[in-house]
Amino acid sequence: MSEAAQTLDGWYVLHDFRTMDWAAWQDASEADRAKATRELLALISEWEETEARKEGSLALYGIVGQKADFVFMHLRETLRELNAIENSFNKSAFARFTKPVHSYVSVVELSNYMGQPGVDPMQVPEIVARLKPILPKSEHICFYPMNKRRLLGDNWYMLPMEDRKAMMRSHGMIGRSYAGKVKQIISGSVGFDNWEWGVTLFADDALQFKKLVYEMRFDEVSARYGEFGEFFVGNRLTNDSLGEMLKV
Amino acid sequence: MSEAAQTLDGWYVLHDFRTMDWAAWQDASEADRAKATRELLALISEWEETEARKEGSLALYGIVGQKADFVFMHLRETLRELNAIENSFNKSAFARFTKPVHSYVSVVELSNYMGQPGVDPMQVPEIVARLKPILPKSEHICFYPMNKRRLLGDNWYMLPMEDRKAMMRSHGMIGRSYAGKVKQIISGSVGFDNWEWGVTLFADDALQFKKLVYEMRFDEVSARYGEFGEFFVGNRLTNDSLGEMLKV
Amino acid sequence: MSEAAQTLDGWYVLHDFRTMDWAAWQDASEADRAKATRELLALISEWEETEARKEGSLALYGIVGQKADFVFMHLRETLRELNAIENSFNKSAFARFTKPVHSYVSVVELSNYMGQPGVDPMQVPEIVARLKPILPKSEHICFYPMNKRRLLGDNWYMLPMEDRKAMMRSHGMIGRSYAGKVKQIISGSVGFDNWEWGVTLFADDALQFKKLVYEMRFDEVSARYGEFGEFFVGNRLTNDSLGEMLKV
Amino acid sequence: MSEAAQTLDGWYVLHDFRTMDWAAWQDASEADRAKATRELLALISEWEETEARKEGSLALYGIVGQKADFVFMHLRETLRELNAIENSFNKSAFARFTKPVHSYVSVVELSNYMGQPGVDPMQVPEIVARLKPILPKSEHICFYPMNKRRLLGDNWYMLPMEDRKAMMRSHGMIGRSYAGKVKQIISGSVGFDNWEWGVTLFADDALQFKKLVYEMRFDEVSARYGEFGEFFVGNRLTNDSLGEMLKV
Amino acid sequence: MSEAAQTLDGWYVLHDFRTMDWAAWQDASEADRAKATRELLALISEWEETEARKEGSLALYGIVGQKADFVFMHLRETLRELNAIENSFNKSAFARFTKPVHSYVSVVELSNYMGQPGVDPMQVPEIVARLKPILPKSEHICFYPMNKRRLLGDNWYMLPMEDRKAMMRSHGMIGRSYAGKVKQIISGSVGFDNWEWGVTLFADDALQFKKLVYEMRFDEVSARYGEFGEFFVGNRLTNDSLGEMLKV
Repeated sequence: MSEAAQTLDGWYVLHDFRTMDWAAWQDASEADRAKATRELLALISEWEETEARKEGSLALYGIVGQKADFVFMHLRETLRELNAIENSFNKSAFARFTKPVHSYVSVVELSNYMGQPGVDPMQVPEIVARLKPILPKSEHICFYPMNKRRLLGDNWYMLPMEDRKAMMRSHGMIGRSYAGKVKQIISGSVGFDNWEWGVTLFADDALQFKKLVYEMRFDEVSARYGEFGEFFVGNRLTNDSLGEMLKV
Repeated sequence: MSEAAQTLDGWYVLHDFRTMDWAAWQDASEADRAKATRELLALISEWEETEARKEGSLALYGIVGQKADFVFMHLRETLRELNAIENSFNKSAFARFTKPVHSYVSVVELSNYMGQPGVDPMQVPEIVARLKPILPKSEHICFYPMNKRRLLGDNWYMLPMEDRKAMMRSHGMIGRSYAGKVKQIISGSVGFDNWEWGVTLFADDALQFKKLVYEMRFDEVSARYGEFGEFFVGNRLTNDSLGEMLKV
Repeated sequence: MSEAAQTLDGWYVLHDFRTMDWAAWQDASEADRAKATRELLALISEWEETEARKEGSLALYGIVGQKADFVFMHLRETLRELNAIENSFNKSAFARFTKPVHSYVSVVELSNYMGQPGVDPMQVPEIVARLKPILPKSEHICFYPMNKRRLLGDNWYMLPMEDRKAMMRSHGMIGRSYAGKVKQIISGSVGFDNWEWGVTLFADDALQFKKLVYEMRFDEVSARYGEFGEFFVGNRLTNDSLGEMLKV
Repeated sequence: MSEAAQTLDGWYVLHDFRTMDWAAWQDASEADRAKATRELLALISEWEETEARKEGSLALYGIVGQKADFVFMHLRETLRELNAIENSFNKSAFARFTKPVHSYVSVVELSNYMGQPGVDPMQVPEIVARLKPILPKSEHICFYPMNKRRLLGDNWYMLPMEDRKAMMRSHGMIGRSYAGKVKQIISGSVGFDNWEWGVTLFADDALQFKKLVYEMRFDEVSARYGEFGEFFVGNRLTNDSLGEMLKV
Repeated sequence: MSEAAQTLDGWYVLHDFRTMDWAAWQDASEADRAKATRELLALISEWEETEARKEGSLALYGIVGQKADFVFMHLRETLRELNAIENSFNKSAFARFTKPVHSYVSVVELSNYMGQPGVDPMQVPEIVARLKPILPKSEHICFYPMNKRRLLGDNWYMLPMEDRKAMMRSHGMIGRSYAGKVKQIISGSVGFDNWEWGVTLFADDALQFKKLVYEMRFDEVSARYGEFGEFFVGNRLTNDSLGEMLKV
């Protein structure tokens, strides 16, 4: 029997992708649009206060292409809080002008393949910070879900722990070579959503997403064992750029 | 020829996933919302009475993410009763504010891989209780459908009974190590719905879903032979939290 | 070159799955609902007369779960008649309250793997009756489409006729062991619809569907060579239970 | 390196599948339906004149089942003409009562596996007639797209030309054995649509579609290398039967 | 560990596929259609000015078949500019008469498999021109996304660099044999969209798309390692042909 890697788990994550109903937005009266915008900004402001209290975090990006117009990435201590956030948004005046198009539920995770014997990882402040992270304010976001493959001869879950460990170490080294360029947040979604992990990348130069993911694809972990879902890429939305986007 | 495992079958199960039409809900008059809520609560109350009579059971959870807003999990003696439940719901004033998004039809099942010769399982009260269970009131639910793989060299249904038995025993031991943390209800859906089984998990700590499913994935039964569909995760809805959710 | 099994072909089959637009149904005036119901009953009555003349057959079942609200299973001598039935239904007042959700086109088929040399099967009355069957009035229906697999080493169509014959014989023996419990209608859909066969099962005890299909899954024909589509399960609708279902 | 078979290419093909919005059709005034019907008949008449001038061809069939209500199969010298046909239809009063449900873009193709050295095929009148065919007026149509498989050991495109030639010859012999019963039009869609070929069959007896496609499925070309998409089957629509179909 | 090929990256690309809402277009007043058309032409004109300044490029084609009515292919220096283009279009009066149906995000890419040691490719003007290309005005466009396969024995990303280089060289030679007939723009989408590459072909004779893609399919790179998504084919839209298309 193969041995499961231990994971450390932090905040729950909801990626909430929405698209605008542009026709309804333009048909609305100036007053209705103003009210909707006020309610949206109030929600964002509330979520930023939660972040300031270190009880969660928020990232808001505009998505390029037709898959969505924007994504709210929410981090919270519990699934109940994430559900409450959804419900608040859905009941806001702004939600009336949007359509849900995709979502992803997961929990921030550090795999313990690299764990050191005799060290309690929850006593390492850097690890705790990575499990309950304040999301970066980078210019760009990239999100995709992934599985480890279980296909005949290419079955990750049938490999001995040692082999998985060695491959994950080499994989991690590619990630580390992008330090300062790309920040990765890995979240586990086994039992929560349709894939095993969600990967969220942040960078000021979007091209670094392509370079990192492409380079990793030649690494055995991805080449033989990686299965990937939909990719989303976006640009950071500040209150200003959001205002610009919503101006009719 | 491979030998089929015998199964014991109990109550039929309907997982009924619905999403709110939030715009319609907010556009409705206070009176219409009140009427809809009353009819919903009356249905829930009726279903709870059925449960009190031990003629069925109900679980109601809010689903996290956009896949659904809530799931009604109904257990009944017959498929006709399940269909009648659907029709009652569909004709209620509340249904007008919801959209069906997913459902799953199955029957509570105990596999007899662990059966003991000479013992009639239907005379074992604990087994009967597991076939016609009153659903737990845990904080969280997790649901997913699954198949046993039939793919070239990895074909569960071509394995000798002894091998399947041994693997299921090891698999069951993982499940049992979560006793007190996760309650599992396995339901068979061969001939009823698109996958072979439905798995419904209940826990007060949602993280236990991830730990259990992830640990099992390294077990040969899942690693080589498990195929999984969509995962849904949710928070228990009481009349209070339901009221909170529906408040505009 | 592999040799194709001969098939005997009978009536064409249309499985026509529909779902109710419950909101529209409830919004309609009493008079409009009455008119719609009258037109539906008139169509059913007309189809039953065709059945009485042995020029076709009809089965009407309510489907459990959200895939559909009901299925009309029509048998006719020609594809033109099936198309005419669709058009009549679509133009009826009742159709206005339904949405098409799935359909399947096939032809009742007996495979000739078990054929005996020197016997013209069309002279065997029991065979003719099976090719142009009057559908049973059983309590439950189960429908699913299937293919024989053509995947690398598991390729049904590359097997020698003798091997296929032997496997089909063993497969048929499982089916026969359910005589009196489950009635099977196999229809071929190569060239007509997306899968190679449709399987329609009828039983008074729905659990027999699960037992039969599960037992067959361990048989090599299904285990190695069967690929299955969506499963639908339902309860028989008489005029009375249909009336009950449509009552608001 | 494997050698590509040469193809001869004729008219471009658009299969345009549409479904009726029956509710809108019935809600329309008699005058609006009459106008819509007139515009449809005018388009059909224009397309028949093009056919009479041998500058294209048209087939119009009603589709059985819910996939579509009818298909227009258009042949033209250029893609621009096909696009113009779409736009004319979309702007007609009749289109208002239909919804597009599927389409397929290809070009009539003869593979040159059977080509003879030293013969310029475009000088053979029978070949030219097959590349720019006037579509038959058969009672029934069958359409499906297909690929040649490229899967590990079963990779058509890695086979030596000689092997492909031998298999295609055997395959062609099955087709020819249906001469007089089924007319095949093969169109290539590599670079134009999602599959590599479209196959359109015409027959007066729809059962011949099933017999032909089923028999071919045992032939190695299909058994090992064929991948098939959705199948559509239909009945010829003349102005009379079209009028019948549209009568409310 | 396999070595990743270096890529050179140029302008970001958005393929924006839209379909007309023909009913709304025809229902609109002459004045509304005129306003919508003016706004569309103004956007196109603005985008052409950007092209004239060599800060981006635009291709506009009508798509054949029901997948879309037209595609805007936009090239820009940044993802932000592409997102701004989407938002401008969505807020235009013309967008009200269209529905988004598909999009693709990528970046113009030259693979460096053919790179020469000691030469900085960004100093080669022809290379820079290919990374920031002014799109051709050819009669026809063809677009499809693709992956390199990672499937058991057929795993591109596990091959040694030398083997990949040799195969890409042979592949490139086929492409070059179409010089003057087909212009290819390869864009990388790893980290940006659901496939690894987008391929956009331009030609005055649409048949050349089929010939090129079909010939390449026999080349080992495609035969064993290519996986292809949806294909779109279209005809160039000038202001004149666009006006023709929009005339009611």
